[in-house]
Amino acid sequence: MSFPRTLQWQGDAKAGRLTIIEQTKLPSELIYLELSSLDALIDAIKRLAVRGAPAIGVSGAYGCVLALREGLGDAGLERLAEARPTAVNLRWAVERVSAFAKGDASRALEEAKRINAEDVAACESIGKHGATLIKAGMGVHTHCNAGALATSGMGTALAPMYVAHAAGVKFKVFADETRPLLQGARLTAWELAQAGIDVTVIGDDMAAIVLREKKSQLVITGADRIALNGDTANKVGTYSLALAAKTHGAPFYIAAPRSTFDAATKTGADIPIEERNENELRQWNGAQLTAKGAKVFNPAFDVTPADLISGYITEDGILQASQIAKWLR
Amino acid sequence: MSFPRTLQWQGDAKAGRLTIIEQTKLPSELIYLELSSLDALIDAIKRLAVRGAPAIGVSGAYGCVLALREGLGDAGLERLAEARPTAVNLRWAVERVSAFAKGDASRALEEAKRINAEDVAACESIGKHGATLIKAGMGVHTHCNAGALATSGMGTALAPMYVAHAAGVKFKVFADETRPLLQGARLTAWELAQAGIDVTVIGDDMAAIVLREKKSQLVITGADRIALNGDTANKVGTYSLALAAKTHGAPFYIAAPRSTFDAATKTGADIPIEERNENELRQWNGAQLTAKGAKVFNPAFDVTPADLISGYITEDGILQASQIAKWLR
Repeated sequence: MSFPRTLQWQGDAKAGRLTIIEQTKLPSELIYLELSSLDALIDAIKRLAVRGAPAIGVSGAYGCVLALREGLGDAGLERLAEARPTAVNLRWAVERVSAFAKGDASRALEEAKRINAEDVAACESIGKHGATLIKAGMGVHTHCNAGALATSGMGTALAPMYVAHAAGVKFKVFADETRPLLQGARLTAWELAQAGIDVTVIGDDMAAIVLREKKSQLVITGADRIALNGDTANKVGTYSLALAAKTHGAPFYIAAPRSTFDAATKTGADIPIEERNENELRQWNGAQLTAKGAKVFNPAFDVTPADLISGYITEDGILQASQIAKWLR
Repeated sequence: MSFPRTLQWQGDAKAGRLTIIEQTKLPSELIYLELSSLDALIDAIKRLAVRGAPAIGVSGAYGCVLALREGLGDAGLERLAEARPTAVNLRWAVERVSAFAKGDASRALEEAKRINAEDVAACESIGKHGATLIKAGMGVHTHCNAGALATSGMGTALAPMYVAHAAGVKFKVFADETRPLLQGARLTAWELAQAGIDVTVIGDDMAAIVLREKKSQLVITGADRIALNGDTANKVGTYSLALAAKTHGAPFYIAAPRSTFDAATKTGADIPIEERNENELRQWNGAQLTAKGAKVFNPAFDVTPADLISGYITEDGILQASQIAKWLR
């Protein structure tokens, strides 16, 4: 199957390195970065050169190898875990690898490879289960990027599309450009076009009429955190898309591995919404977009209530909101 | 009242000129352009240096003075009327001035000034009627720019805000940035901030949560064409905003003068939706936004069905959809 390899460890624990796609350069240039020091890896995570919760988690796991071989100990591991505080996967992966490694870089590499393999396998299972929803001739709608570029495998929301495409199913994808950082236009469009999948980019404010005109009839997005009752935090704009899907009778699915479900979060009301830097809306490539003197409100995520969600595509199959609590036990 | 003067004729028919704000430079720079030839005016209309249906109509009216004093006759007038084929106001104004002028530039100026004054008066009436909807402490939501910059007066959708502000009412405005051309971030934010009105720019994909959180409780937008049954074509994204407003109980109003209502259009299904150049979504300021290999769909307008619209703020008061046909007779 054809999808980008977002990150790959090459070599042994002593001299190996993590090769990642430099995502800030996409879609203009495909550049690979070789990261062989902890500082270089932390910098890549902070700059969003590697992004997407699963991809950050796996990168962090390999980062433990770098920290330990550089003799940086707990201080180095803590600095790594804090590189992006909102990505729960990062701390989770660092803690899991540290606990197994007991200070040994070779043991860290062993556990990091296991986390990597689990992520790849979860993506594949999500792809297989989700592909059953994609019928020939359909338009499939997505928001932001929950693709191969967000994981170490074939992605979450885009995995069903890769599987359906490989099986010869003909369908179209509509990708919201996803303001302000344009992950849909820059990343989702890039990886699907590379794979030969028919993808059309639209402005976020065009999604409702694409659904009304039945150009798209099925929506699949990723998630940043899913509460016990099924309420789902994802990139801002997901809620708006879910409302339009409901109005026009398009099923709306969330694709995410078990690690995205949080048993400690009861409902969406318990999920804090992070506001990001105003400059994301104020300027682009050096050009001023928003008038000075105007304020800016830039929430990074929103919460889609469970009653707008048709199902959750997981590595264990497609679940209903009512099944989540039992499944997590 | 403080709002920008988008266009003003200065001088007599023989030596006068039309001074306009060069809107493509906003919000970075406020530059005035002096247009004293038909070619310069047509160029300004085509480049969107002047935009907004009422502003284009008034510009076209003054353009007739230029065409006639340059001795360009019917060919010149026709070239002017065709400068932007989708703006019905342009052809309407050119035909009205031509019919009155009978080839005389001075008579053309007389009629153009009448059209200008009627536009200014319609904006003022819309402002007065619409201001009754804006209560202290409210958040008022708008999309695109239907402000002073889109008319020769104080605007349509923004006119009620200018009137309420002048009356000392304290309220906030939320302006969708309005992809792809960012008229909300660039123009609405600029003119409201200039006037000292509290304005916050958001991504279009954030509108639904701003309404859900009750940060905004009232929506007012402009319109490009209103059908006999009240279905309304406006800048793409208006429909999505109307859906979110309905879901969260925020009244949704269209502000437009009588000339925007089209008795020849029975319902929204009769309104053709113009698709604009793909490059509007593919690049910004020289930077590539959308991956090559991906398609782009860029409809400029959408149609909001009458059942999502709480009322129409016109120069004759606030109408219901059911009153439109009788009012137009």
